[in-house]
Amino acid sequence: MSFEVVSQSRSFGGTQFVYRHASRETGTPMRLAAFVPPQANAGKVPVVWFLSGLTCTEENFTVKAGAQRVASELGLILIAPDTSPRGEGVPDDAQGAYDFGLGAGFYVDATQEPWTRHYRMRSYLERELPALVAENLPADMSCQGITGHSMGGHGALTIALRNPGRFKAVSAFAPIASPMNCPWGEKALSNYIGPDRAAWRDYDACALIESGARLPDLLVDQGTVDNFLESQLKPQLLEAACVKAGQPLTLRMQEGYDHSYFFIATFIEDHLRWHAQRLGAA
Amino acid sequence: MSFEVVSQSRSFGGTQFVYRHASRETGTPMRLAAFVPPQANAGKVPVVWFLSGLTCTEENFTVKAGAQRVASELGLILIAPDTSPRGEGVPDDAQGAYDFGLGAGFYVDATQEPWTRHYRMRSYLERELPALVAENLPADMSCQGITGHSMGGHGALTIALRNPGRFKAVSAFAPIASPMNCPWGEKALSNYIGPDRAAWRDYDACALIESGARLPDLLVDQGTVDNFLESQLKPQLLEAACVKAGQPLTLRMQEGYDHSYFFIATFIEDHLRWHAQRLGAA
Repeated sequence: MSFEVVSQSRSFGGTQFVYRHASRETGTPMRLAAFVPPQANAGKVPVVWFLSGLTCTEENFTVKAGAQRVASELGLILIAPDTSPRGEGVPDDAQGAYDFGLGAGFYVDATQEPWTRHYRMRSYLERELPALVAENLPADMSCQGITGHSMGGHGALTIALRNPGRFKAVSAFAPIASPMNCPWGEKALSNYIGPDRAAWRDYDACALIESGARLPDLLVDQGTVDNFLESQLKPQLLEAACVKAGQPLTLRMQEGYDHSYFFIATFIEDHLRWHAQRLGAA
Repeated sequence: MSFEVVSQSRSFGGTQFVYRHASRETGTPMRLAAFVPPQANAGKVPVVWFLSGLTCTEENFTVKAGAQRVASELGLILIAPDTSPRGEGVPDDAQGAYDFGLGAGFYVDATQEPWTRHYRMRSYLERELPALVAENLPADMSCQGITGHSMGGHGALTIALRNPGRFKAVSAFAPIASPMNCPWGEKALSNYIGPDRAAWRDYDACALIESGARLPDLLVDQGTVDNFLESQLKPQLLEAACVKAGQPLTLRMQEGYDHSYFFIATFIEDHLRWHAQRLGAA
């Protein structure tokens, strides 16, 4: 299965692609953005995944974060997937709310109807898409890092925790630290996974760490004036879980920063250098 | 008259504002984006204007170009205005085309009906907005640079050429080099200014240079795979006008780059350093 090129643009000496492909897992066409740095002309290079937040597509990170400059210097492929299945026949939140359904796949495999057929972002990102990336791009799949923002920070942490050894570097921007303990997460998990809260633990970074899952180490940036800090994100829960479990964590509270891509753009360079160091890149 | 804050976000240690204000010239509310670097806490700093292209608002440059990182390092205020008046009562292209009317003010003062009341982007940018920027921001108005993209490259060049001495640094990304000699420009100028082509010369960088207007020097970047290169942009006309007039020009044909913000993001650092050097900034 090969990627169809939707668009491609030269960027910092590399190429920014947008691809489309048919997904077996979601049963829909899916898009992703991939930046391929100039170093890939000479052989396979490490890969860093960026998972996006509520309402986003593959485009937000790609046009707003300014990550290509640093990825081009460090020789990293950047993969930015979409955040949910889309298209006719894909069910959405009954009220069209931004925090569930389209643009809000929450990186789970749904077990409740009517979500089970299409909402399979976990399997899409853990199995199907990595195989396609390996097949279609000059990607060294033994050197992968993962990061993300908000809902995508949750996605990055939980995918890494459930797949020990796969990612040599893990970080997050303003992640939803514990979906079991905030309104966004409770809405998503009760609808996609059902009322049994024990089944939610697979999708909660704090619960996974409590149950023994570990990361090599972990960098998290969080803005102090983020509107969602207290109600939804709760980095103190992640901090407490890491302290209790002896999981290394560098949590940086960034004074005056909000939840926007201006925050991500400011700190993406730090994150990509953190990843590159652990991936043996430049 | 003070700016109303629509939004503000911390960005690279400075602040990215979006402002709204009532414009006397356009007779509408107008928006602009302004990045204020951390150096402005200690006193007034130089200003670089970025004029955007067709279809853009104040947002495109602000979220896509990644300019704040460099402006924060160099201590530059960045001003990104909108590209036309907007709102109820503002006439638009009869067919709603992207290249005329809303989002396509072409940086002129219209002399033809029904455009005269609102389409006054020349006077807005040459007189009204600079006074408001001086009044509302920690801006050293004796140290100004100007740049822009496509239609905004045309705007930057022509505003600088008509206001000798005002700008110490001038550059452009893929500018419309000669609106008198391309379909976008011919449509805009014939509708806004009327059939007398002699009156168009005030809005054509090549004609202004031919008539004796000069810039200190000039940096222009142009992508070689830009879809509009041959039909609309025609940098060779600018080059010929500069050679004939002895106007210094550094024209860089950038291999493989297109007309998108990926092109701008790649080279904005070069441009801001070019400006900062001439503005006596860091």
